[in-house]
Amino acid sequence: MSVTFADVQAAAERLKGHAVETPLFESPALNERLGGRVLLKLETMQRVGAFKFRGAYNRLVQLDAEQRKAGVVAFSSGNHAQGVALAAKLLGMPAMIVMPSDAPAIKVEATRGYGAEIRLYDRINESREAISDEIAKSRGAVVVPAFDDPHIAAGQGTAGLEMMAQAKAANAVFDTLVSPVGGGGLLSGISLVVKELSPKTEIWGAEPSVYNDLAQSLASGAKVTIKPSTRTLCDALESPSTGDVTWPILKANLTGAVGLTDPEVAEAMRYAFQTLKLVIEPGGSVGLAALLTGKVDARGKTTGVVVSGGNVDPALFAKILRGEI
Amino acid sequence: MSVTFADVQAAAERLKGHAVETPLFESPALNERLGGRVLLKLETMQRVGAFKFRGAYNRLVQLDAEQRKAGVVAFSSGNHAQGVALAAKLLGMPAMIVMPSDAPAIKVEATRGYGAEIRLYDRINESREAISDEIAKSRGAVVVPAFDDPHIAAGQGTAGLEMMAQAKAANAVFDTLVSPVGGGGLLSGISLVVKELSPKTEIWGAEPSVYNDLAQSLASGAKVTIKPSTRTLCDALESPSTGDVTWPILKANLTGAVGLTDPEVAEAMRYAFQTLKLVIEPGGSVGLAALLTGKVDARGKTTGVVVSGGNVDPALFAKILRGEI
Repeated sequence: MSVTFADVQAAAERLKGHAVETPLFESPALNERLGGRVLLKLETMQRVGAFKFRGAYNRLVQLDAEQRKAGVVAFSSGNHAQGVALAAKLLGMPAMIVMPSDAPAIKVEATRGYGAEIRLYDRINESREAISDEIAKSRGAVVVPAFDDPHIAAGQGTAGLEMMAQAKAANAVFDTLVSPVGGGGLLSGISLVVKELSPKTEIWGAEPSVYNDLAQSLASGAKVTIKPSTRTLCDALESPSTGDVTWPILKANLTGAVGLTDPEVAEAMRYAFQTLKLVIEPGGSVGLAALLTGKVDARGKTTGVVVSGGNVDPALFAKILRGEI
Repeated sequence: MSVTFADVQAAAERLKGHAVETPLFESPALNERLGGRVLLKLETMQRVGAFKFRGAYNRLVQLDAEQRKAGVVAFSSGNHAQGVALAAKLLGMPAMIVMPSDAPAIKVEATRGYGAEIRLYDRINESREAISDEIAKSRGAVVVPAFDDPHIAAGQGTAGLEMMAQAKAANAVFDTLVSPVGGGGLLSGISLVVKELSPKTEIWGAEPSVYNDLAQSLASGAKVTIKPSTRTLCDALESPSTGDVTWPILKANLTGAVGLTDPEVAEAMRYAFQTLKLVIEPGGSVGLAALLTGKVDARGKTTGVVVSGGNVDPALFAKILRGEI
């Protein structure tokens, strides 16, 4: 089952009045630093502090009365968990979220705060898929995938629809668009919009360099699944591969993907704090980091950047501010 | 010399294309927490990270060719310094800034970064007014006051013009407006706009409780000058009195003023970090703190809040995140 531009438009109708239309923000200081025009889509200001609410709501609002009664189950390290939990709360259905026991505390607490039941699991010795399937079976609940689902991708793509309209209002035409990418739900949805409305725009994915499965996939022409031996700062982007729904779209629409290291991500977070006055989580700042490092060239161009989330533990943020990472 | 609504409109024309039209942001989570509708004017996203650029540019752009050649001098603990320094740079004139030696390092460095010359002074043993006057005399430079100047107040008031237009676009009519207040340049300018366009809106000032000269002045009916023996977290609001220009406007237009303690300010900054994903400096967060503490009641109302600046030292922000303040 594929996703189309029309699906994103339909999702935008469903989200109207429920999702925040987040600002597209232009900073003269950032423009000067990069020698081009840069517009930041601030999904940090979305409900739950990340774009994930869009896809979750678009998926859950389409469940029928019987499905709503049984509720939903999702596994996620954090932002998808919160998106599903809040969407379920707003739509009056139960939600069970399966989260790794080492997920950022801020994300676990926030998810619980939206009224979801939490089941923590051990990343090493347990399978989150198996746990979720078991819960789904015993309760009759619907499993809500984090990215590999056409309704999820269409929902995330609504951020791209807003970006294009907001850019037009600001007399900006994107030469380039950069977005964080993990499983590709967000970027596949956005790329459908951009290719429809601005076919000449180059689209780049930004991913942690140790989770560069998208760059490897684009290079080889086939979806690659990786097995990194290390973690990254970007807990939201630790996806070993893109999905069956998202990969063909990314393959068709992307110019390329760049990898960012932890120090590069931390530096972008400090820049956002100091100059933009924005709290961005590690995974949310890789697009900005791609520009600041010059890995995606913004000089003399107009570039759109998705800032995808801001859910970072205060203790980690304090460490980064102190330059300890 | 007084200030009028027309002066603010004229300032807005001068600032067009130079100042950022900052977002008026509404957070569903904050609305839910306060039981009302709250719209935040994010002057953290203004050039130099605070509203001060507006007034400085409006003042400096009206200097004639000879005055521009001699340049300007200003004394300020930080945000006004940066505003004057950047405006001077954009307009091609020299700027000398007199700053206390204990000003936040981030503000001193940023001011230097805009190309201004810095003269540090000792808060206890030196008079910044005397130093500034001497520099002005020897160079023929114009002294740019931080708040007690009609062009400065008119420039800051443009934030209010934007707020009113943005609120209208969002179908919001302010029952209440709250803004940080130090010397009153910002709030006097904004209050002129609000009283003209929405006369029923209640206007509140928020100030550090140990620098509550405005509350004392409003209570006694005459401008009070205080001599606090302690500092506050809010380095941007340590003004012992309002000004001869600003006080009559504030007296005429304000409903009242509330005082915030350091712990209340720190708590608001943590809330902004965690839920709004915004970096707000202590002085910039007193309006938000006034709502979160219930000192200004937002329940069942529509409230506009000015978030006036985000220039906070990383080390202090880290301490606040760790709950050490």
